[in-house]
Amino acid sequence: MGVSLKDVAQRAGVSIKTVSNVVNNSPHVTPQMRARVQQAIDELGYRPNLTARHLRKGRTGIIAFAVPELGNPYFAELAGAVIDAAARHDYTVLVDHTAGLRERELLVCQEFRSHVIDGLILSPIHLETADLVARHETSPLVLLGEREYEAPYDQIAIDNVAAARTAVRHLLDLGRRRITFLGSRTGQERQPAHLRLRGWREELAAAGITPDESLVVTTEGYGRADGAAAVTALLERGERPDAVFAYNDLIALGAMRTLTERGLRIPEDVAVVGFDDIEESRYGATTLTTVSPDKQAIARLAVDRLVDRLSGKPVAGPQRIRPGYRLVVRESSGGAGQGPPPEEGARGAAGD
Amino acid sequence: MGVSLKDVAQRAGVSIKTVSNVVNNSPHVTPQMRARVQQAIDELGYRPNLTARHLRKGRTGIIAFAVPELGNPYFAELAGAVIDAAARHDYTVLVDHTAGLRERELLVCQEFRSHVIDGLILSPIHLETADLVARHETSPLVLLGEREYEAPYDQIAIDNVAAARTAVRHLLDLGRRRITFLGSRTGQERQPAHLRLRGWREELAAAGITPDESLVVTTEGYGRADGAAAVTALLERGERPDAVFAYNDLIALGAMRTLTERGLRIPEDVAVVGFDDIEESRYGATTLTTVSPDKQAIARLAVDRLVDRLSGKPVAGPQRIRPGYRLVVRESSGGAGQGPPPEEGARGAAGD
Repeated sequence: MGVSLKDVAQRAGVSIKTVSNVVNNSPHVTPQMRARVQQAIDELGYRPNLTARHLRKGRTGIIAFAVPELGNPYFAELAGAVIDAAARHDYTVLVDHTAGLRERELLVCQEFRSHVIDGLILSPIHLETADLVARHETSPLVLLGEREYEAPYDQIAIDNVAAARTAVRHLLDLGRRRITFLGSRTGQERQPAHLRLRGWREELAAAGITPDESLVVTTEGYGRADGAAAVTALLERGERPDAVFAYNDLIALGAMRTLTERGLRIPEDVAVVGFDDIEESRYGATTLTTVSPDKQAIARLAVDRLVDRLSGKPVAGPQRIRPGYRLVVRESSGGAGQGPPPEEGARGAAGD
Repeated sequence: MGVSLKDVAQRAGVSIKTVSNVVNNSPHVTPQMRARVQQAIDELGYRPNLTARHLRKGRTGIIAFAVPELGNPYFAELAGAVIDAAARHDYTVLVDHTAGLRERELLVCQEFRSHVIDGLILSPIHLETADLVARHETSPLVLLGEREYEAPYDQIAIDNVAAARTAVRHLLDLGRRRITFLGSRTGQERQPAHLRLRGWREELAAAGITPDESLVVTTEGYGRADGAAAVTALLERGERPDAVFAYNDLIALGAMRTLTERGLRIPEDVAVVGFDDIEESRYGATTLTTVSPDKQAIARLAVDRLVDRLSGKPVAGPQRIRPGYRLVVRESSGGAGQGPPPEEGARGAAGD
């Protein structure tokens, strides 16, 4: 007790900032420096109190990141990126789980725990623009997750229509013509599933192909089992697609399992493209071609907007920000091996 | 679709604030207004914010679940089970992420956010028994995650040694003799990696085989890339294993990718067994045999212990509880397809 950051800095012979960087797990610390500071921390029995600093400013130092589906690696990977981005501003992230339920989404964004949480990054599924307009909670809110709202909040989402068109273009360039879309949704026109389906339609039409709606399969959920069931349904009603474009990687991976079970070769018989670039897509027996949203940029943009608004600095009005994405071509559409690592330059631009 | 506070407000013809006051039992509501709002609540089947009720009892209604690695699907799946178990007691779960750093583990368990969190379920990596004995925070704590502590807290973990022996026994029964263990750790004798490695050693010895330590590969981390690197290292130093037993599924899945790249057939040339039974293990081109801890039981036991202690009811002293596990045999060791679903009866017993 009573050991301060300054005591640790003196013992280690480094600056207080360096100790802070180590404690906050900043990436800007060499392993040697980390070890040296850690030794001083251990010797002195220092216990950091991140909360105290924020409390002095009337804040808790905690931001919430609310996702619809923790079991989907896309959100788990995005959460990791948000945690890293927040640590650079000395914020702790608590991950909240809405299960994609409107009631939970309303709860986290409207009246939930403002005494606990300084700000919220929310990836909604069922929230409506009216819900957001009616929000009376004043803590900062940043929206992620690709659904579009006419509401006075920062919204960060890649261009889903353009990204989907890129994926379909790739399959067309391979000579595929019967491209199925797995994972459409009923209702809610501005959800990402609709935007990606619109991209499928637009790119086919642009290539002079009339979109065959019998190749669009609606799924119950967003998981591997849904992809497997969708392919089974498609094949059992006699469709013979030569390519799959899936709403996300999990659906694509489930589809690939079923295609393999049915003796169809990937990519020779059926090429497959997913969306999300989860790590799993790089490690299957057949690696998965996928649209890779720039998760690091999404997380950094979201946290930076939130922290700017929390800082009380003058900040521009709500913006719609479009992080980059790129298509990563792997074995499931004839590419090589695991493809380039996800860090390499992402395409796309922030704007409007 | 859920019913929102706003829906209730519209039905009752009052402001959202008024509905909120009624739900939170605010004194500033007339009986007439209360009745009017209650009628709308009943008609619409609105379920009020659970937090309010907890706050009246001096609690927040929030428990934290701190995991070392959100990107590992095992923890994401376990978090889902904890969220479900907590919901049955009207508790909300915030997921916290320690990155497996001792400093963060100390933070969450010792002095962090007691004003926010009623209780904590923690899956530690680097925490020592001394850290736990020195804990001065009085909120309930339940430990998960298989490392064993001599500390006065409930600890919930499967029997890692016995589970590992089951996996190795299965490979021996298939006639495999050069069984590599991927994912050992240096130091920390009571960590699960050591317990599983001990199981590997004990089962080999019981079969009259001297454990060949050159078949034990230490990895940097717990991910797919670590499994891929481990197999590469093993093959490049000339080892020719006929089976892999991996510390976890991610390491096993990374290993399988590399084995496939090198032209080795699974299971004909190399049988593979993992540990965790993450969903991905059921969907690869070759499904993965794995030790399946009963995640539902782990989550339920942890939440029940925590809630019992929060309730103020007389509860027995700290216990070490052993949930069940079972071996799920799939294609990577000669089994069929996806194997039975994970819900089917798990083996093992609670005790000591």
